[in-house]
Amino acid sequence: MFNIALFGCGRIGKVHAVNIAANPETQIRAVIDPYQEGAMQLADQYGADVMTVDEAMSDPDIHAVCICSATDTHADLIELAAKAGKAIFCEKPIDLSLARVRTCLEVVEASGVPFLVGFNRRYDPQFRTLKDLFESGAIGKAETLVITSRDPSPPPVDYVKVSGGIFRDMSVHDLDMARFIMGEDPVSVSAHGSCLVDPEIGEAGDIDSAVIVLHFPSGAMANIINSRRSGYGYDQRIELHGSKGMLKAGNVREHLVEHWGEEDCSSAKPQYFFLERYEKAYIAEWQHFVDVLEGKVEPQCSGYDGEQALVLAEAALESLNAQNTVKLG
Amino acid sequence: MFNIALFGCGRIGKVHAVNIAANPETQIRAVIDPYQEGAMQLADQYGADVMTVDEAMSDPDIHAVCICSATDTHADLIELAAKAGKAIFCEKPIDLSLARVRTCLEVVEASGVPFLVGFNRRYDPQFRTLKDLFESGAIGKAETLVITSRDPSPPPVDYVKVSGGIFRDMSVHDLDMARFIMGEDPVSVSAHGSCLVDPEIGEAGDIDSAVIVLHFPSGAMANIINSRRSGYGYDQRIELHGSKGMLKAGNVREHLVEHWGEEDCSSAKPQYFFLERYEKAYIAEWQHFVDVLEGKVEPQCSGYDGEQALVLAEAALESLNAQNTVKLG
Amino acid sequence: MFNIALFGCGRIGKVHAVNIAANPETQIRAVIDPYQEGAMQLADQYGADVMTVDEAMSDPDIHAVCICSATDTHADLIELAAKAGKAIFCEKPIDLSLARVRTCLEVVEASGVPFLVGFNRRYDPQFRTLKDLFESGAIGKAETLVITSRDPSPPPVDYVKVSGGIFRDMSVHDLDMARFIMGEDPVSVSAHGSCLVDPEIGEAGDIDSAVIVLHFPSGAMANIINSRRSGYGYDQRIELHGSKGMLKAGNVREHLVEHWGEEDCSSAKPQYFFLERYEKAYIAEWQHFVDVLEGKVEPQCSGYDGEQALVLAEAALESLNAQNTVKLG
Amino acid sequence: MFNIALFGCGRIGKVHAVNIAANPETQIRAVIDPYQEGAMQLADQYGADVMTVDEAMSDPDIHAVCICSATDTHADLIELAAKAGKAIFCEKPIDLSLARVRTCLEVVEASGVPFLVGFNRRYDPQFRTLKDLFESGAIGKAETLVITSRDPSPPPVDYVKVSGGIFRDMSVHDLDMARFIMGEDPVSVSAHGSCLVDPEIGEAGDIDSAVIVLHFPSGAMANIINSRRSGYGYDQRIELHGSKGMLKAGNVREHLVEHWGEEDCSSAKPQYFFLERYEKAYIAEWQHFVDVLEGKVEPQCSGYDGEQALVLAEAALESLNAQNTVKLG
Repeated sequence: MFNIALFGCGRIGKVHAVNIAANPETQIRAVIDPYQEGAMQLADQYGADVMTVDEAMSDPDIHAVCICSATDTHADLIELAAKAGKAIFCEKPIDLSLARVRTCLEVVEASGVPFLVGFNRRYDPQFRTLKDLFESGAIGKAETLVITSRDPSPPPVDYVKVSGGIFRDMSVHDLDMARFIMGEDPVSVSAHGSCLVDPEIGEAGDIDSAVIVLHFPSGAMANIINSRRSGYGYDQRIELHGSKGMLKAGNVREHLVEHWGEEDCSSAKPQYFFLERYEKAYIAEWQHFVDVLEGKVEPQCSGYDGEQALVLAEAALESLNAQNTVKLG
Repeated sequence: MFNIALFGCGRIGKVHAVNIAANPETQIRAVIDPYQEGAMQLADQYGADVMTVDEAMSDPDIHAVCICSATDTHADLIELAAKAGKAIFCEKPIDLSLARVRTCLEVVEASGVPFLVGFNRRYDPQFRTLKDLFESGAIGKAETLVITSRDPSPPPVDYVKVSGGIFRDMSVHDLDMARFIMGEDPVSVSAHGSCLVDPEIGEAGDIDSAVIVLHFPSGAMANIINSRRSGYGYDQRIELHGSKGMLKAGNVREHLVEHWGEEDCSSAKPQYFFLERYEKAYIAEWQHFVDVLEGKVEPQCSGYDGEQALVLAEAALESLNAQNTVKLG
Repeated sequence: MFNIALFGCGRIGKVHAVNIAANPETQIRAVIDPYQEGAMQLADQYGADVMTVDEAMSDPDIHAVCICSATDTHADLIELAAKAGKAIFCEKPIDLSLARVRTCLEVVEASGVPFLVGFNRRYDPQFRTLKDLFESGAIGKAETLVITSRDPSPPPVDYVKVSGGIFRDMSVHDLDMARFIMGEDPVSVSAHGSCLVDPEIGEAGDIDSAVIVLHFPSGAMANIINSRRSGYGYDQRIELHGSKGMLKAGNVREHLVEHWGEEDCSSAKPQYFFLERYEKAYIAEWQHFVDVLEGKVEPQCSGYDGEQALVLAEAALESLNAQNTVKLG
Repeated sequence: MFNIALFGCGRIGKVHAVNIAANPETQIRAVIDPYQEGAMQLADQYGADVMTVDEAMSDPDIHAVCICSATDTHADLIELAAKAGKAIFCEKPIDLSLARVRTCLEVVEASGVPFLVGFNRRYDPQFRTLKDLFESGAIGKAETLVITSRDPSPPPVDYVKVSGGIFRDMSVHDLDMARFIMGEDPVSVSAHGSCLVDPEIGEAGDIDSAVIVLHFPSGAMANIINSRRSGYGYDQRIELHGSKGMLKAGNVREHLVEHWGEEDCSSAKPQYFFLERYEKAYIAEWQHFVDVLEGKVEPQCSGYDGEQALVLAEAALESLNAQNTVKLG
């Protein structure tokens, strides 16, 4: 049984809390959050203690940390945990600054602790099946990857302002997915965007609609289509077109009941947002971290992966601003 | 080029008129209908003459008849045409009375003229594909056939009163389809029904909702589900379940555009009714009759087929009334 | 926290064990099974004790029993538990003999203990959504219900011999579902069947393919299509046709990835069997039992429901043998 | 009845010949093709005369020309027809050189003859339904258009060499479709591509896989995904994402029969290529030309449209070579 210190008890912290508790190999030992009331509630619920950062990092009973706190605390907590010899699971991103990511990763590497970056979609059963079928040769060599990724509705502008922008905040998942599916690092990034959903997002210096094109060393391309608003739920689809055919992973609908009526035939919308759509992915992700803790496997999403996703997001921003293709590497 | 005498210029007569004219091997030579104005209009449109029954039957230039007149005239016209040596295409049914069907078929047989009964669904490209795949062994031996057949909305009660009842008028198509797909004559019929759609149909002594179960000599069963009203268009589906899997022929939708919106994801309804859904079937049916005229093939839907469909419809009615399974043969 | 005595640790006992343990309101206190090794293993896994029937029934710490033992022990265990004042969850069926079911239910009623019969499909999220939409008026008044229910492959003949036959063993689920969806008790049953899948099933006096037609007081009909073999997984579909349209609950597929290739476009098969397809239903069923234990709700599947499903299964058998419609009530 | 001179009796000429003959308002009066045998055969089949270009242009009985000849003859024939006062239907493109297109259009404009450019996909019932639904407000304001367009297999390299390259030859249809759906002229083009399908295409200086991003004055974007090879038929899909939802036009499959078997559930592939998929579009296109001839409507695809599609194709090529976004207008 591994004892986990959970940093941050907001929305995503609670998702991980459920999975940590439900996993037979892990339990929550400590909850750490500047918002004391929230920390106490979560600690109570799972029979854990509320601790300070220092207490948790120095507690020899704690085997691993699960970092779900505010983005700007990630890198510091990672370094503290690494120095304290704790295994680390950290929600994406490591940091919004690439320079900070790199100094942080040096500390992690020096420490030798297991480190898993939380790109949850890698564990989605649909996308995993697509990747497995591709790797088994079902469609030959990859040619074009198309990732459609639309949020149901835009976040508050206050969030947008501290989010690092659509590429670092939202597209970063799709950029990671492109690397994950293709098994290659892109050689160039070309990004296009508009502010169509909410003019306040534009006034905050960001865009809300984007198209990104990646080139890979093999010549294959990836095409990412993003929007901060779908109008019909969380639109999460992948098409991988290869030399012998295509694989398509569609949306997961709220239910499978069709209604045939006078107007039309209707089906349920896609599941509303990431908590619903990626519920199984979060469980599988935590199980993977347990397998890492047990020394059975290497982390499937390393510090390098976390860094590369940010490299691509920054290149996308540079490309958007320059209206130019940006070369990498 | 075969010259055709078209009997009846109502809705179904006009469907055949279009196809006769469009087929490079046939043209309409004569139009016969007690409703003179309709006959003249159709004749004008296709460069044909309006004739009396006698004129058409005795015209040596006429090679074949296409009988689309009122049901109670079919058997007489078939006999006249047979005696006149004309090849015969006759819309279903031959007659609503089985005795009359049998005397009529004797005349046809004695004459030796080609005779094709118009069960249009046999030529539907979807159902034909299903049958072809079944016969190619795609699902092994047939076990259960499920035919769903719902009209978009009930006919006027005045029509219901002269229709011969739901089994002779509507289910007869599905009973023929069951024989066509299975390639066997059933050994028993069990019919169930209710009047749920329109109480006036019940007052007219008929039902509007039916379930029929057929047993075949092989042990296989067919299950027909009928309603005079769907609420969403013409529901025409077939499922054939066999020893190695299933074949399903779905509805043809009005179009293929999906709308994903705040409420749901909607698709188009099935095509409205038989004129839309079986447009291609009517063309293929006429082409088949042309192939018969040219001596290339035997009629795929013979007098015997027309008789058997009525035998099954009558057995269904007997079963419904007796609340009992009716054995055949 | 309710302490549960689990009777039977076979396949279905293990399903419930997982759900009892995962539910925050219940824990396994005792495991009872004549097969001691299995009981010990399960007890170990969940920190429970192995007990005899008497020990469990007389232990005041045990609040409820979960009966998953062999069918022929159900009625006896129900009676013992009722007399001991334990709340009862019992897997279907109560017994294969209607007479025994009735004496057993009298004991339950006299005791006043909460009693829930385990027809798992009532809790399937797809079918529940269909029922909810129907009850909200989405398709008006019910007219025809079509339940397709095919097992992936036939059970061993040894099982068939003690199963009570296809109607009591397999169709009983669909008969219960028909009552559940329609909210009425049928007035007649007509059953049809063949032995097509495995001749040994026929030699054992049973059939493996069935079509059942039910009539309801409202005039509505239900049409159940069963087979012991699908060839493609667990085929569990419901169509409810009403006065204003149709609701369809389709199969749950193994995954949502499509492969488009040179031969065809392929999708995943339905989930293999009941453990996969009804995983969520079993969880929801147990949660419902917890709600019953907490006095929040009445059991949604009562002793009467268990009895009626068997009444219909027996009527189906009588109808099959007599080749006749059997009236009820 | 309008008499048509048909220039070119290759594959596409034959498609139009069928539609000209089937339309009640048009007939083929002359067939012109340097390949005399082909011209004679087609003329024979439709009761037309074989003519030279001069004969056809100077024949006062000929009301309109249908230009289906080799691409490099289009502009000259258009000019001759315009000067001869014939109405003109010309297969795309007007010419591969933008300069030539412009001089040609000046001649057409000076002549005042009706002129329709043959972008067949504008008449596809699926895409037309999508456009109609969009214009009726079904999804609010357009935000992102995604056009997937993949040929089943690459053309011979000899064809590639004279085709003008993938953008002028293939993407030009999608560029036109983007303008047609959005109802705006793009302000910038960014094109990306690789040679992945056939190395000989690369050696010929062309690419076979492309991604194009267009920006429109409204801020909306269009994303075109092209490949010279699908592996599964002609992949022709459109997704239009707007402020209130999405419209999707899917592929038309060869048939609607599903096979559920031990391996998977399979459906038919998309129709093979443009002759099958756009059969109805070609018929509707010709009917539109007839409506133009009758003075009922203005051409829905004008010389300006033909020119703009080429402007975009050339900009795409420039963008690909410069690895840069190209601004327009």
